[in-house]
Amino acid sequence: MPDNLKVALDAMGGDSAPEVTIAGAIEAVSGHDIEVILVGDRTKLTELLKGKRYPPEKIFIHHASEVVEMHEATSIALRKKKDSSIRRAIELVKHHEAQAVVSAGHSGVAMATSLFVLGKLESVDRPAIATIMPSLTGYFLLIDVGANVDCRPENLLQFAYMGNAYFKTMFNAPSPKIALLSIGEEDTKGNELTKEAFKLLKGTGLNFIGNIDGKDIFSGSADIIVCDGFIGNIVLKVSEGLAETILKMLKMEIANVVTGRLGYLMIKPAIRGFKKRTDYSEYGGAPLLGINGISIISHGRSSARAIKNAIRVAGEMAKAKVHEIIANDLKGQSPFKSQ
Amino acid sequence: MPDNLKVALDAMGGDSAPEVTIAGAIEAVSGHDIEVILVGDRTKLTELLKGKRYPPEKIFIHHASEVVEMHEATSIALRKKKDSSIRRAIELVKHHEAQAVVSAGHSGVAMATSLFVLGKLESVDRPAIATIMPSLTGYFLLIDVGANVDCRPENLLQFAYMGNAYFKTMFNAPSPKIALLSIGEEDTKGNELTKEAFKLLKGTGLNFIGNIDGKDIFSGSADIIVCDGFIGNIVLKVSEGLAETILKMLKMEIANVVTGRLGYLMIKPAIRGFKKRTDYSEYGGAPLLGINGISIISHGRSSARAIKNAIRVAGEMAKAKVHEIIANDLKGQSPFKSQ
Repeated sequence: MPDNLKVALDAMGGDSAPEVTIAGAIEAVSGHDIEVILVGDRTKLTELLKGKRYPPEKIFIHHASEVVEMHEATSIALRKKKDSSIRRAIELVKHHEAQAVVSAGHSGVAMATSLFVLGKLESVDRPAIATIMPSLTGYFLLIDVGANVDCRPENLLQFAYMGNAYFKTMFNAPSPKIALLSIGEEDTKGNELTKEAFKLLKGTGLNFIGNIDGKDIFSGSADIIVCDGFIGNIVLKVSEGLAETILKMLKMEIANVVTGRLGYLMIKPAIRGFKKRTDYSEYGGAPLLGINGISIISHGRSSARAIKNAIRVAGEMAKAKVHEIIANDLKGQSPFKSQ
Repeated sequence: MPDNLKVALDAMGGDSAPEVTIAGAIEAVSGHDIEVILVGDRTKLTELLKGKRYPPEKIFIHHASEVVEMHEATSIALRKKKDSSIRRAIELVKHHEAQAVVSAGHSGVAMATSLFVLGKLESVDRPAIATIMPSLTGYFLLIDVGANVDCRPENLLQFAYMGNAYFKTMFNAPSPKIALLSIGEEDTKGNELTKEAFKLLKGTGLNFIGNIDGKDIFSGSADIIVCDGFIGNIVLKVSEGLAETILKMLKMEIANVVTGRLGYLMIKPAIRGFKKRTDYSEYGGAPLLGINGISIISHGRSSARAIKNAIRVAGEMAKAKVHEIIANDLKGQSPFKSQ
């Protein structure tokens, strides 16, 4: 019988770590066939675990003496903090002591260290971060959301392949619909980058449905939306900011209406339902695709629930060996091979 | 005494033209010291004006025999439809028979024809479209939202100057806060384009407050947000799409709650208030800045109210001679001059 899946968790990473990461780990192991290695200050972690109810055979501690702070420069953290929780957690995957890693710490450092320690897949030119976003009919995958700020058309093509491998495996969808984020739907619309990427995507066996306009991304018409990491990050952040702003504006308007307070109480369950539906913590973090292993980058503001879901997704990705599927799908497809 | 301001209106342009454009023109002249020249099919326009109440000395008709349809290719419409309502309207500005032009028709054609007929200002390399968007505390100007899909750093610098000239003049704000749309606020964050543009903006006398992250654009912390037209268009469209999606999702959730219907009725005035506050028609369209004249491009879905507001803004821009202020502000500032 094979061992249980082990997920390494950067226990010190995140705005409310390690309290929240520990809580997330306990939730994760309680419901699932999974074990978690908490990586961080052993004394502190041991102290915090005391008195908590959890299956002790499913939670381990791996000591790391340093913590990367949120404001640190990526390059310096990468060079100087060799015993950071984030690095040690990733190294556990490298040394096959864990099958996947989750960090809600410094996302730049988590990304760079994952890439540096685990390395990229041979057929991949640039790894990319994929994130699930809610749509009117369910959800869609946006890739890349920040790993690559300047891209070539071939990069976007690879993002499509990687997103496809992830989506079909994790959501059991054999042929997800892939669209290219652009201005207007017509084939000829776009900038230099997307016009070239469009041609490349047309020539694949992927289920490429063409350009998608910004106003339609939440309609549910595409499963995977491909863009460069600069635009993807802006789209993700603008959406986050706008959703918050709209709820704030609505509350301000409701406060101005005589019957508003009572009305608000009556629709409050609906607001909760809406929040649950659009809550990033349901999706548990964003995988860095294209590296030789499974690494999930979670929001710094992750709740225990978000950490739990990230661990669950990391476990599923490890079980399905998504990185091997990506390597396989891209074999012979890479436009960089012939250069 | 000088003549009243005259605004040329592409009466045939827009999803519900000419009924809606006529209604907007009548609203505009009724409340303001402004005259409107309806450009389009004289017979049809005369027929539709019959029986309507309006001051006849303030509405004129200028005949044009052709109409550019929404699906037409810009290059072909520009070359072949010389007697289109959109072109004739713009020509009235060229020939000083009107001081500004408004079109809710094919926006690509409106933009290209404005540029072709009126020409760009000498000191401007690339004209840009600026649009007002609602924020938590009021509104902000986003520039460019679609005129230029591939930009150089110098273009973004000029967008900042043009946006500044427009904003300070129209909103009576002597030193508007200008930010550069990027990923993260730190000076060093961004892609190649924005990193270079950041340095150029630092060296100006403009009130440049640095990079702004996507999540903060609606916070009200910047008056003007600068980006290339590809990203600007996507941000604008994503925001439009998300706002609609959120309201739809909330309604769906409210329908699932027992007390939802009654609660919704009680907060309905608040939803109306919210919609009014975020309604693009309040702002009346997006000026094409950097050309030798005043041209406003309105949404194809413009209501009569949106057309009225666009005419009002066009009149104010003409009165303030915003294009001359831009020319003046950019004189000697253009990084293209020395090349």
